[in-house]
Amino acid sequence: MRVRVFVTGGTFDKEYDELTGRLYFLDTHVDEMLRRGRCALDVDVETLMMVDSLEMTDEQRALVVRACRDCDQTQIVITHGTDTMVETAAAIAAGVSGKTVVLTGAMVPYAFGSSDGLFNLGSALSFVQSLPAGVYIAMNGRSFPWDDVRKNREAGAFERLNA
Amino acid sequence: MRVRVFVTGGTFDKEYDELTGRLYFLDTHVDEMLRRGRCALDVDVETLMMVDSLEMTDEQRALVVRACRDCDQTQIVITHGTDTMVETAAAIAAGVSGKTVVLTGAMVPYAFGSSDGLFNLGSALSFVQSLPAGVYIAMNGRSFPWDDVRKNREAGAFERLNA
Amino acid sequence: MRVRVFVTGGTFDKEYDELTGRLYFLDTHVDEMLRRGRCALDVDVETLMMVDSLEMTDEQRALVVRACRDCDQTQIVITHGTDTMVETAAAIAAGVSGKTVVLTGAMVPYAFGSSDGLFNLGSALSFVQSLPAGVYIAMNGRSFPWDDVRKNREAGAFERLNA
Amino acid sequence: MRVRVFVTGGTFDKEYDELTGRLYFLDTHVDEMLRRGRCALDVDVETLMMVDSLEMTDEQRALVVRACRDCDQTQIVITHGTDTMVETAAAIAAGVSGKTVVLTGAMVPYAFGSSDGLFNLGSALSFVQSLPAGVYIAMNGRSFPWDDVRKNREAGAFERLNA
Repeated sequence: MRVRVFVTGGTFDKEYDELTGRLYFLDTHVDEMLRRGRCALDVDVETLMMVDSLEMTDEQRALVVRACRDCDQTQIVITHGTDTMVETAAAIAAGVSGKTVVLTGAMVPYAFGSSDGLFNLGSALSFVQSLPAGVYIAMNGRSFPWDDVRKNREAGAFERLNA
Repeated sequence: MRVRVFVTGGTFDKEYDELTGRLYFLDTHVDEMLRRGRCALDVDVETLMMVDSLEMTDEQRALVVRACRDCDQTQIVITHGTDTMVETAAAIAAGVSGKTVVLTGAMVPYAFGSSDGLFNLGSALSFVQSLPAGVYIAMNGRSFPWDDVRKNREAGAFERLNA
Repeated sequence: MRVRVFVTGGTFDKEYDELTGRLYFLDTHVDEMLRRGRCALDVDVETLMMVDSLEMTDEQRALVVRACRDCDQTQIVITHGTDTMVETAAAIAAGVSGKTVVLTGAMVPYAFGSSDGLFNLGSALSFVQSLPAGVYIAMNGRSFPWDDVRKNREAGAFERLNA
Repeated sequence: MRVRVFVTGGTFDKEYDELTGRLYFLDTHVDEMLRRGRCALDVDVETLMMVDSLEMTDEQRALVVRACRDCDQTQIVITHGTDTMVETAAAIAAGVSGKTVVLTGAMVPYAFGSSDGLFNLGSALSFVQSLPAGVYIAMNGRSFPWDDVRKNREAGAFERLNA
């Protein structure tokens, strides 16, 4: 397998629970999205956890780092909630070297018609194949090095620290 | 503007005409797709033509080459029908140098729920920012150099000549 | 089973063939639509044919009439192409009595995001339960008796003959 | 205007707030849904309130009853959250006579791809034209008299009291 995709949850994969009216996690949509994108890349998708990134614990974050370090692939995409995506990127940068790791997510769940998820997944899979080793965030059609990015919560978009 | 997008039509932009039951071209969906992808890239979209790529004339193809050569940007994405995408890529390679040009399209119109268009646009915009100067096709989650790619019409997917 | 649904094809059920770029018939979407509508009615769906209504032959039309007459149910919905829906309604009116038969269809295939199909199916299933015996067309949120309706091809909508 | 539609909110009209990750109300989708259904009925849509039906106050419920009584139309559709739809139907039945009033809603917001909203709106608009004066709930492809219906919260569906 050429590209590894680790699923951690996030808005990306949230579903609407019609009995409670709340958003929740069921299974990941990544496989369905790859089919819809007619993706012919050799991709190995693995769900590590399904969590809201605001609730990701230190142990879970360490598990993500370990998964990146221990897998055979050198090209890794991680789907992740946007709220702590930068924090996880920093943890990976501290613990993994010699690999290209791209974190992505969505502002709107894929299950909604208006989701940015499919665009972001196409973007992340492309950056991971073409950027040099390092840890990046792919959102809003751009790639950001892990140490020069923040989520602007008012705008709902990622931006460079020194823009 | 950092990235130039030239629209030429193709399946990507086809609409369903409910009066005739046929597919046709109205306006491009690229702007709407960029909004949906929450794309924060500096993008300048220009429609050069709206044609089925099987009907693209030599004059039209020459116009696309000229547009790539004459524009200020060095990062160019072209939306194009898949049937003659390789032919146009070759024409651009012969006429343009020092720029990264990425052609993309869709197997299913964006107006259909199951379209690969949003995935491909995210992919093309990412490759164009990260690949060195040259002419490429971005389809199926992959990038192909213009001289090592063909559309496999039976499979409905692009592949390397020497895979 | 309380309500019988006969599927005959029409725009309703057209798919996009990504290899040829043409619209075609595969399986009906009616079952999926009933699930999406959380329909709890006792419905028995049967596909009689999958044809463009412009190509429906006299034999096929006779088969539809016979199916309506011979089935156990007295409440029947028929999905049908809009172009000859009025003609089939007249044939049914001539051959079936004592039953409520409602024909419906769509201007845009269900597989397209913008389809009117789900709205029309909800409408037809409701009219068939509440209108007296007779043959009707349910389109555009209205019901029309079979002998006071025509498709206005310029407007893409159904209207009374004596509006 | 032949049919009056009163909007009160409910799941039907909920949006996803991409900044907070919560569902909220913006404007109603009913007009867009009528366009998508190619609805040619003479419909007058008025938003009375935009509330979660669990939070509808007695004053708001009285306002809905008054709106039904005071409007010129005798065919009225009300979009409403499903949780207290039966309660509002009873209030209308106590306060309005000589009109056909049909309440409907959705289990999944219209903004989600998988919503039942369009099906239910088509259904409610059809029942309101064909049922005799009285107050009804139109959900799950069925119509229920206001005094013989309850929401089965476990199943997420409406059913007769004496089924």
